[in-house]
Amino acid sequence: MTEIASLGEFGLIDHLTKNIELKNSTSKLGAGDDCAIIAPTEGMETLVTTDMLMEGVHFDLTYIPMKHLGYKSAQVNFSDIYAMGGMPKQITVSIALSKRFSVEDLEDFYEGLQAACEQHGVDIVGGDTCSSRTGLAISITCIGEVEAGKAIRRDGAKETDIICVSGDLGAAYMGFQLLEREKQVYYKQIENAKTDAEKMAISQPDFSGKEYLLERQMKPEARRDIILKLREAGIHPTAMMDISDGLSSELMHICKDSKVGCRVYEERIPIDYQTAVMSEEMNMNLSTAALNGGEDYELLFTVPIADHEKIEQMEGVKEIGYITKESLGTALITRDGNEFELKAQGWNPLK
Amino acid sequence: MTEIASLGEFGLIDHLTKNIELKNSTSKLGAGDDCAIIAPTEGMETLVTTDMLMEGVHFDLTYIPMKHLGYKSAQVNFSDIYAMGGMPKQITVSIALSKRFSVEDLEDFYEGLQAACEQHGVDIVGGDTCSSRTGLAISITCIGEVEAGKAIRRDGAKETDIICVSGDLGAAYMGFQLLEREKQVYYKQIENAKTDAEKMAISQPDFSGKEYLLERQMKPEARRDIILKLREAGIHPTAMMDISDGLSSELMHICKDSKVGCRVYEERIPIDYQTAVMSEEMNMNLSTAALNGGEDYELLFTVPIADHEKIEQMEGVKEIGYITKESLGTALITRDGNEFELKAQGWNPLK
Repeated sequence: MTEIASLGEFGLIDHLTKNIELKNSTSKLGAGDDCAIIAPTEGMETLVTTDMLMEGVHFDLTYIPMKHLGYKSAQVNFSDIYAMGGMPKQITVSIALSKRFSVEDLEDFYEGLQAACEQHGVDIVGGDTCSSRTGLAISITCIGEVEAGKAIRRDGAKETDIICVSGDLGAAYMGFQLLEREKQVYYKQIENAKTDAEKMAISQPDFSGKEYLLERQMKPEARRDIILKLREAGIHPTAMMDISDGLSSELMHICKDSKVGCRVYEERIPIDYQTAVMSEEMNMNLSTAALNGGEDYELLFTVPIADHEKIEQMEGVKEIGYITKESLGTALITRDGNEFELKAQGWNPLK
Repeated sequence: MTEIASLGEFGLIDHLTKNIELKNSTSKLGAGDDCAIIAPTEGMETLVTTDMLMEGVHFDLTYIPMKHLGYKSAQVNFSDIYAMGGMPKQITVSIALSKRFSVEDLEDFYEGLQAACEQHGVDIVGGDTCSSRTGLAISITCIGEVEAGKAIRRDGAKETDIICVSGDLGAAYMGFQLLEREKQVYYKQIENAKTDAEKMAISQPDFSGKEYLLERQMKPEARRDIILKLREAGIHPTAMMDISDGLSSELMHICKDSKVGCRVYEERIPIDYQTAVMSEEMNMNLSTAALNGGEDYELLFTVPIADHEKIEQMEGVKEIGYITKESLGTALITRDGNEFELKAQGWNPLK
């Protein structure tokens, strides 16, 4: 393992960014100067989003490898750009790290970053590393573009609009629960093992049949494909967000900002088979996982009722309810026909 | 003091950003959606810079108040935009914080941020707060603009160009040394005080005659004025950087990227009287502080020799040497006429 101090701050950035080729015509200057330079495309507006990820809060290095962490850190930012109907083009990456990390760890992280960037046609135009007294901190800013005046905000949902979600929900949350459980089991085994032979005999957890949950937690994919499909079908959503904090929380943001209410049907919320099996195994409420579990990075959007048939024919998108008058509140209709007010338990790591 | 948990993550951001008015015509949408929207000005390119500041590495809350920290965090980003010859227009702000911080702490931080933003005509267009297991982490991204093709990079310095710096150097570093010394003195007094009366009698340090050093360390000012003066005088620097890691380090970046050498005269390096007095008091080498002390946030730039007279008449800018062939290396000529190779000790917090 190569100590980071052996390269120094500038040496490390050079090392990590030297092989990066800028591929977008709008990326005029990448890492290595005081700023990156981007030449905006005529007729387009610029989108900017930032995310900060803290060790022990947003990720746990006991189970997520550095390469996946790099991949995920990039995807969650792309997801915010897609959520405005735009295309991500550039990112800048800041990392604060303590002495326990090696140059190889950083290389793995960048490998994951670059894999995600290649998939989405994004250039890394700025890098910054500094030291941290404690854990790892990552901050990524993503720059994207969208046709002028065409960005899809949260405040455009109208009464009678149909509420749609892409993919399925709750799997990333169940993946998280699974990883946490296995971590506890592993620690317990370590604690109980008295001899070296017993320690050697501790088995790795068996995740077979649960691969999808792990993938959704550790390797989320920003839904570029959905944005392209919507464009192709000529559908312009009236409001859109990505689902990072849970469906309930995001729906309530759209309703609040658009000054409308909603009716959402529990039975229509898309859930994968593995998510259902796992929630049963863990004795957890499935709908709670789907409504309040975060990190799915699917898209939640509303479309005019006239687009109903187009949406029905679109693979990977499901209609889960519709927008109502504000006075009707945010209602969830359960499978047995009861009506509840939606609550955003969401992720509140500050609590 | 109001606990942050009482507002929650979204409540906190709303609280901090609700009174922010967007003033730039290019700021189309601020905080509160998945992305900010910026409408680029025709004929301009976009500049992007990010800085991450970690508690215990980049700042010490035992002496820097939250308001100053906010102010400084913004200024150091603006400085990077000016260093490309551009004008800062928008920032996004991410903060990770632990439970020991209150809503009032955050309000103070934002007050400092906003004071800096108003001074420089910058809009806060995105905010993000999350929790941290340990210290405070701040990440700011600044977006600026510059006339297309006119950004001043590091790689344009040419043989015979004059090397210039704004303001004076080493004061921020001496301010840091002073604060560190007084912190140690204070801790020692606390340790030695046996009775309550003795503890009450511990005096605050007397900083009179040293105000400038503290101000340079705790309240740096990005040199917008210099950029405006250069434009007014019709001077277009061939290379430019801001001095955040020390003059030596930055000069070596320009020489390396421009593939040139330099000759810099020790006696011409601008140093304030208080910096000189303090270095004597602390028995430190004055030139080392000026050459390798960081955080001055002054501008280092090179201009064609034809601009010599214009620069001479410009207040607050000093010529400190000139650019040479690459083969001549990076030379410092000391007061007694000796010649040394410049070394970048700089700030290397990873070491």
